Amino acid sequence: MTVSDPTVGELSEGEILARILARLSPSRALLGPGDDAAVIAAPSGRFVATVDTLVHGPDFRLAWSNGFDLGWKAAAVNLADVAAMGARPTALLVALAMPDATRASFVEHIADGLRAACEALAPGCAVEGGDLTVSDTLVVAVTALGVLDAAAVTRSGARPGDIIAIAGDTGVAARGLDLLFSHFTDASGTPIAISPAALRSLSDEDGTALSRQLRPFPPVALGPAAASAGASAMMDVSDGLVLDASRMAVASTVTLDFDRQCVGDDPLSLSGGEDHALLATFPPSAVLPEGFRAVGAVRDVGAAPVTIDGEPYDGESGWDPYRDWDSARG
Amino acid sequence: MTVSDPTVGELSEGEILARILARLSPSRALLGPGDDAAVIAAPSGRFVATVDTLVHGPDFRLAWSNGFDLGWKAAAVNLADVAAMGARPTALLVALAMPDATRASFVEHIADGLRAACEALAPGCAVEGGDLTVSDTLVVAVTALGVLDAAAVTRSGARPGDIIAIAGDTGVAARGLDLLFSHFTDASGTPIAISPAALRSLSDEDGTALSRQLRPFPPVALGPAAASAGASAMMDVSDGLVLDASRMAVASTVTLDFDRQCVGDDPLSLSGGEDHALLATFPPSAVLPEGFRAVGAVRDVGAAPVTIDGEPYDGESGWDPYRDWDSARG
Repeated sequence: MTVSDPTVGELSEGEILARILARLSPSRALLGPGDDAAVIAAPSGRFVATVDTLVHGPDFRLAWSNGFDLGWKAAAVNLADVAAMGARPTALLVALAMPDATRASFVEHIADGLRAACEALAPGCAVEGGDLTVSDTLVVAVTALGVLDAAAVTRSGARPGDIIAIAGDTGVAARGLDLLFSHFTDASGTPIAISPAALRSLSDEDGTALSRQLRPFPPVALGPAAASAGASAMMDVSDGLVLDASRMAVASTVTLDFDRQCVGDDPLSLSGGEDHALLATFPPSAVLPEGFRAVGAVRDVGAAPVTIDGEPYDGESGWDPYRDWDSARG
Repeated sequence: MTVSDPTVGELSEGEILARILARLSPSRALLGPGDDAAVIAAPSGRFVATVDTLVHGPDFRLAWSNGFDLGWKAAAVNLADVAAMGARPTALLVALAMPDATRASFVEHIADGLRAACEALAPGCAVEGGDLTVSDTLVVAVTALGVLDAAAVTRSGARPGDIIAIAGDTGVAARGLDLLFSHFTDASGTPIAISPAALRSLSDEDGTALSRQLRPFPPVALGPAAASAGASAMMDVSDGLVLDASRMAVASTVTLDFDRQCVGDDPLSLSGGEDHALLATFPPSAVLPEGFRAVGAVRDVGAAPVTIDGEPYDGESGWDPYRDWDSARG
């Protein structure tokens, strides 16, 4: 039997779309894919909207990420942003810009990954629209939309005396990235494929780190839970705990003081991004939802936006794509 | 005086963002740019959402489009999709993936174009969020969001006996594209810049066509007007009148029969895309909103989805990016 796996350049837009739609969950929206726009319910009269893009090179490598991983990650990073507002994700729109040599099976696997991430992280959320274009560089831009049962939780509501709490991992995905560069590159630093044998040779901890780098697992359901529990501020930790905490501190005009014994001193844990943990603050009287752990306290604004046991953090704080990405080095 | 125009690779993400935000309209949303997600009102408890991507190469050339044109077009094509549902655009999210050699001024001009298009086509709509990434290929993915005062107008509601009507141009942007290839390429077919002298040498009609290709002017306000007037089906003509009409016909299980004396026989007008006219159907009793012109009638489904004076159209029907785009030819 011959298995046909054409390139997208050999198919019409309609044929590619049909292959994608066959892999996605049924629409949960008032009107799903197929018209000029999707129609989505917002029973509370307000909704949240965010977009995040994965670009081949800075954000993923095809030697390391298969289509499933890519679809999963593109969904997960956006679902985390919706959750960080205290909202429940309801719909994704997916813009795929692909070289015309891309295999149809790869596109189908992206669809599988999008679906699996929604089912695992945000049941009830589905891909409700999108766009296909030709591009020399593979780009996946996902818009995530969500509904709010209560007021949105912003970055700017942290108040002195509040408890700082985290849900989810910090530093695990960054450890996975280090593993990719140390174990899965050739002598010139070029990414090489991850063989099953190489995967088996990793420790359990390293295997988890690799998995979390390729398929992040943000605690999406804990976003609305934090909102219900009265969170005063919340955000997604995408660029590193200290860097993102400093953004919350500046937005709230406070200092965030972490307990060293809670956050440790592993630079990866303090500055590694891409886990998409939720960083939140709660009034002292709040009961933290299960899954959140207290890691410090909000103080009056001081000289440094973020301190650890009262001392400014002097390490690398996190990732800036324009400062840190060197396309020559890769 | 030295005018500094750094590349985006020389700036931090925050610095680029600050330059963009300084050019945009003030937020009209419940919560605008700066948090994990925007918060947008949807008073009727439902909203529409769509995404469309412009990629350097297939969708625009930097020799022909400046940053302003690019921002304008990226907004306009998406605003048209919102309008085509009968909705009023309220917010854009803009994902910009740019080579790090991109000049900051170019990015600022994209922001200017986004703002100008919103102000001209959809007053009240503003950029409320986005994402910046590094990419070898310049990609602009815009998500447009809109609110519905009444039920959404889909492609599938056309009924035999309905009037077919169009608002906006057909074939003008395609004529502009032909002009670009015929007047503004060198002997090898490579795009060359449009000089002021060359622009002045164009006829008024050609100048308009060029302008409409680079900065489409869809009749966005007529989308909600059509919905209020009872439109039974509506869509945005992005890929060519006959091709898009055939999609509406298939979705509605009808045949769309155009009057030759209304639509003419210019192949550009029948198959040229990118004007983003609105194609709608109305019950025979409806009063067409000013700006719509009647061009035919909906018939019981026949052998061909689209006919002109009862005869199937035998020309090229429109544009398919995967069939029609040849990256070697450009």
